[in-house]
Amino acid sequence: MKGFASDNNAAAHPEVLAAIAAANDGHAIAYGHDPWTARTEELMREHFGDGARSYLVFNGTAANVLCFRAMCRPWQSVICAQTAHINVDEGGAPERIAGVKLHTLATADGKLTPELVAPHLGTPEFEHAVQPRVVSVSQTTELGTRYGLGELAALADFAHDHGMLLHVDGSRLANAAAGLGSGLRATATDVGVDALSFGATKNGLVFGEAVVLLRAELADGFVYLRKQTLQLASKARFLAAQFNALLEGDLWLRNAAHSNAMAQRLAAAVDGVPGVRITQRVQSNAVFAVLPRAATERLQRDWYFYVWDETTGEVRWMCSWDTTADEVDAFAAAISDACAATPAPSAG
Amino acid sequence: MKGFASDNNAAAHPEVLAAIAAANDGHAIAYGHDPWTARTEELMREHFGDGARSYLVFNGTAANVLCFRAMCRPWQSVICAQTAHINVDEGGAPERIAGVKLHTLATADGKLTPELVAPHLGTPEFEHAVQPRVVSVSQTTELGTRYGLGELAALADFAHDHGMLLHVDGSRLANAAAGLGSGLRATATDVGVDALSFGATKNGLVFGEAVVLLRAELADGFVYLRKQTLQLASKARFLAAQFNALLEGDLWLRNAAHSNAMAQRLAAAVDGVPGVRITQRVQSNAVFAVLPRAATERLQRDWYFYVWDETTGEVRWMCSWDTTADEVDAFAAAISDACAATPAPSAG
Amino acid sequence: MKGFASDNNAAAHPEVLAAIAAANDGHAIAYGHDPWTARTEELMREHFGDGARSYLVFNGTAANVLCFRAMCRPWQSVICAQTAHINVDEGGAPERIAGVKLHTLATADGKLTPELVAPHLGTPEFEHAVQPRVVSVSQTTELGTRYGLGELAALADFAHDHGMLLHVDGSRLANAAAGLGSGLRATATDVGVDALSFGATKNGLVFGEAVVLLRAELADGFVYLRKQTLQLASKARFLAAQFNALLEGDLWLRNAAHSNAMAQRLAAAVDGVPGVRITQRVQSNAVFAVLPRAATERLQRDWYFYVWDETTGEVRWMCSWDTTADEVDAFAAAISDACAATPAPSAG
Amino acid sequence: MKGFASDNNAAAHPEVLAAIAAANDGHAIAYGHDPWTARTEELMREHFGDGARSYLVFNGTAANVLCFRAMCRPWQSVICAQTAHINVDEGGAPERIAGVKLHTLATADGKLTPELVAPHLGTPEFEHAVQPRVVSVSQTTELGTRYGLGELAALADFAHDHGMLLHVDGSRLANAAAGLGSGLRATATDVGVDALSFGATKNGLVFGEAVVLLRAELADGFVYLRKQTLQLASKARFLAAQFNALLEGDLWLRNAAHSNAMAQRLAAAVDGVPGVRITQRVQSNAVFAVLPRAATERLQRDWYFYVWDETTGEVRWMCSWDTTADEVDAFAAAISDACAATPAPSAG
Repeated sequence: MKGFASDNNAAAHPEVLAAIAAANDGHAIAYGHDPWTARTEELMREHFGDGARSYLVFNGTAANVLCFRAMCRPWQSVICAQTAHINVDEGGAPERIAGVKLHTLATADGKLTPELVAPHLGTPEFEHAVQPRVVSVSQTTELGTRYGLGELAALADFAHDHGMLLHVDGSRLANAAAGLGSGLRATATDVGVDALSFGATKNGLVFGEAVVLLRAELADGFVYLRKQTLQLASKARFLAAQFNALLEGDLWLRNAAHSNAMAQRLAAAVDGVPGVRITQRVQSNAVFAVLPRAATERLQRDWYFYVWDETTGEVRWMCSWDTTADEVDAFAAAISDACAATPAPSAG
Repeated sequence: MKGFASDNNAAAHPEVLAAIAAANDGHAIAYGHDPWTARTEELMREHFGDGARSYLVFNGTAANVLCFRAMCRPWQSVICAQTAHINVDEGGAPERIAGVKLHTLATADGKLTPELVAPHLGTPEFEHAVQPRVVSVSQTTELGTRYGLGELAALADFAHDHGMLLHVDGSRLANAAAGLGSGLRATATDVGVDALSFGATKNGLVFGEAVVLLRAELADGFVYLRKQTLQLASKARFLAAQFNALLEGDLWLRNAAHSNAMAQRLAAAVDGVPGVRITQRVQSNAVFAVLPRAATERLQRDWYFYVWDETTGEVRWMCSWDTTADEVDAFAAAISDACAATPAPSAG
Repeated sequence: MKGFASDNNAAAHPEVLAAIAAANDGHAIAYGHDPWTARTEELMREHFGDGARSYLVFNGTAANVLCFRAMCRPWQSVICAQTAHINVDEGGAPERIAGVKLHTLATADGKLTPELVAPHLGTPEFEHAVQPRVVSVSQTTELGTRYGLGELAALADFAHDHGMLLHVDGSRLANAAAGLGSGLRATATDVGVDALSFGATKNGLVFGEAVVLLRAELADGFVYLRKQTLQLASKARFLAAQFNALLEGDLWLRNAAHSNAMAQRLAAAVDGVPGVRITQRVQSNAVFAVLPRAATERLQRDWYFYVWDETTGEVRWMCSWDTTADEVDAFAAAISDACAATPAPSAG
Repeated sequence: MKGFASDNNAAAHPEVLAAIAAANDGHAIAYGHDPWTARTEELMREHFGDGARSYLVFNGTAANVLCFRAMCRPWQSVICAQTAHINVDEGGAPERIAGVKLHTLATADGKLTPELVAPHLGTPEFEHAVQPRVVSVSQTTELGTRYGLGELAALADFAHDHGMLLHVDGSRLANAAAGLGSGLRATATDVGVDALSFGATKNGLVFGEAVVLLRAELADGFVYLRKQTLQLASKARFLAAQFNALLEGDLWLRNAAHSNAMAQRLAAAVDGVPGVRITQRVQSNAVFAVLPRAATERLQRDWYFYVWDETTGEVRWMCSWDTTADEVDAFAAAISDACAATPAPSAG
């Protein structure tokens, strides 16, 4: 059952499976003391810079929680968009497991700016309130939008000027880098990111995400945090081998660029279709659009995707590394047909 | 580099890799709403009984922590052996993440008994102290020993009689079942276990463990706990496919029986070698022995294994599903040689 | 230094001190097993109804945190106003100590309504998100406003209809009851409140707040929660004796009615003063107003009070049980003088 | 009802009540920004040295939890005696609220030594286990025994040599200082204590304990921790005024010396009474003894005290600042009578 519901529904890339099979060669010391993991750490330094410290974990929620545990003392908090995954889709783990309070800000496009953040810095040394320590952004955002490098750098500068740190939930960082045409180092390290949740599952892995710490002091004790936060894999070579498949060559970029291109293709095909209104800039592998509810219902008989906002009828169409141009074209045609078969709602 | 250090160092079984590859077939709904996961749940019920509710997670520490979160209110605690993995090898996760206090008891062989537990029940309704809620045992234990079915049933009865529950850390439950010659249901469900961490990684998986709840009310809200505790896999089909490889036929049993047999072969070969004293009953895939330190050091030049207790010179030799009889024989010969080359320590 | 900064700056009522002194009579069993505490529990039942279970604690943040610990499982959350004390003035304790996520809603007057809450109920059984369990309101609110009995009942009904519970942060519940002209039972129990943080410190105590549970099942294990949450006083008789002074007669009502009356007197005196704009309905012991910044600065040379909102120049004037009419009159005159001495800001 | 059950059952000292009454003079800025609190901080520096930073809290469990929160990162743990209050009488708060694992050691007399601690330091950089950070001792101990200054200094040196810190649960530190004949600085600061829970409730207060930090870096962010841990009193002057009553003159010492003297008097009176065996050295205000169960039961008809160990029949007799010599003499006589009326148990 193919569809446009989620890049988490995609398969794993064959090169990733091959890497797992290749790593399945006799015994290897457990818990990351193996050559595959050493190679991953090396590749991460090549991609993110010599100072990058990387730690493999099981999923994205865990990567985010671990970043916050490393960045925050108990009285410190995190500023994020209301739409952020950490706020709406992580089961309260930031609060319950990391113990951090989230200050959530309304945004039009899922993106924070220094101007949006500034009024929420609280009162320094006001002992009754938690003290903001982290600005957390999603790159790309949950709405498919993307920060420009200058926008991220401005947020990093703002954070640092106020004694704070910048965290990037990069579950789709590869899509951002592909879209920006910049390398991973330029996308994260050079703009001043302090800690990064670097996504890979959606980008072709069986499973696996990474925490990449770009500020040395955040690594203090991090291995203990990873273990305690339930993220130390015993047969860690199989996590590392997958990352190596992604990062050794340009598979990370090929996969991301492809899913971005499929979203562009879909947006181009449905833009102008009567009844369809694209609601967010298409800057990664997602298309957000409003279409008549009846058209949505008709479409969902044959195609799998999610309604993002029940109140507005906004839908989300996600492309993934294994979405094909033929599928996009067939889906676009079906959208067009569904809208044509649906009487436009009367104005007002 | 093969060796006898840990069953976590073993490879994944080829049938498991094949199952992952077979599952890598187009899109599947993420987060466990896929046919592979449905099949796992079905197989778990076949193995553990109709009332068994299973939830796949990433690793054993997570399985244990999740069991405690499901079993304990905030003022309730867990009784376990001092040697228990939850006490010594889980980075404080039971305390920090599950929030439970552990009452740790000294044991000779890693096994609890009602007699050992009885003095630690505390004072009911004494509001100054946490109230014991869970007796947690490892089956097999960290010392390679195994509870008999009657012993487990006695602990379950004791726990239930005192308003408590029985948790089994079954990271090697398959080894126990193989050794006991009993099925999984007989090993866990029928003796009265309430919640089980069911290990699979050491038994041939790439990664993956399961929480199996055998008391219906423990499942209340469990899916939220799993998500919050960072254990909900997005591409869950790949976790499930591995379990299906293990449980569809008898792979779980073949692997466990083999590693047990290798440990018996090793123990038989070194028992009687001058200088070697086997310290624990060999009831699973581990052999614990004391040998002269100089012999240990000589052996470790060529073979990889751990010293378990620096103060006594006790070592641990672990066999795994991929340990071969030839390796055991070669290792036993090396042990014999190393001891022969080492002058016995003088008495006293 | 008298002033209008906070009812926390007020002294303790002489009858409360006398009660402490009277309780200081030889030995009494510690930790609440004393006659004073038994009497408090009895008085609470008299005031709140036979089903009321009361537990004395040290401060209001603790009372709120304990209510949430009793009401929420780990995956459940709390809906409150953005201005709620639990959100802005409790140092992240709800998140860090109770482990609950707060969903914060913008309000005009600090008050929630079913209509405001309804869009934030989330998706039942959506395992990725915490599940709202508690609607928490402040009575009176941090903005000095007050819920009518019908408004609270509507919120309680709404909560119960959706499987949720109603919590009242009643740090100034006495002021609400006094303003409503209703007893404590009518103000809380009869409208459907499930758990209450019942304030007393601001109402004349040296220290001491109470958790009042109005739904029997919430009391399960509560004494353990109180102890674990650091709120079990050893010499508990001194907490209880203060409450008895408040609740045995009508001291709770006299104090609250007086501070309410002083706020009314102040509001009446400054309403119409050029430059002063009262911004919230005066329904308890607080007056919120905007006045010219220069006037505020001039006033603060002689009078102690807080600027509530730096961006708008809104100030908060709190009256307390020991505020006198003469003080109010002198302060009102000073406000008038300060505004007269300050050129009005130009429009726009 | 007087008795020898607990120094928590004692009244508050009249000078303490007088200090509360004297502080009840008009308004004072809340939350510790008042002259009484400033004076307490000054007195603490006079008693403990210029570097001492003090923070008043509500009770002893809170003081201990706050010390651990200040001393430990999430992966660090606390070593203590099995009999320690933090282990047996704090409702799991160290684990659940501070999030620290306790390593508990068996002791004969409630006292740790470097030799007892040394085997429990774990393996540095072993990422699977929490890393011990704090050695926590009770001075005086729960068994009424007392560390000599040299013993404490040796523990502090040992801790510091191993990168750890020394915490003292000093709920009866005054009794220790009185017994040692040393000042508070000599008893704590000069021997190398890093953080201290300084008890006062049992020594004559209505309520109130203090955290005294003797190592500057531990104070970083402490005010936020105190607030978050539910320990920031609004009318803080009333906490401070009590401490000032204790510390301004020598009331702290008079009270402690008296309760110590009463315990010595009691021990001297019953030592040698047939059937009574004193089981711990009497070095503070407690006497531990074994006597025939029938004698205990007979005694408890008229006198209130606790059986400490049901299995051995050991009892605990606590004296307090308000215990009189006449009461001691009457109780000693009653003990003697009860034992005389009880046939001695046969040997074996």
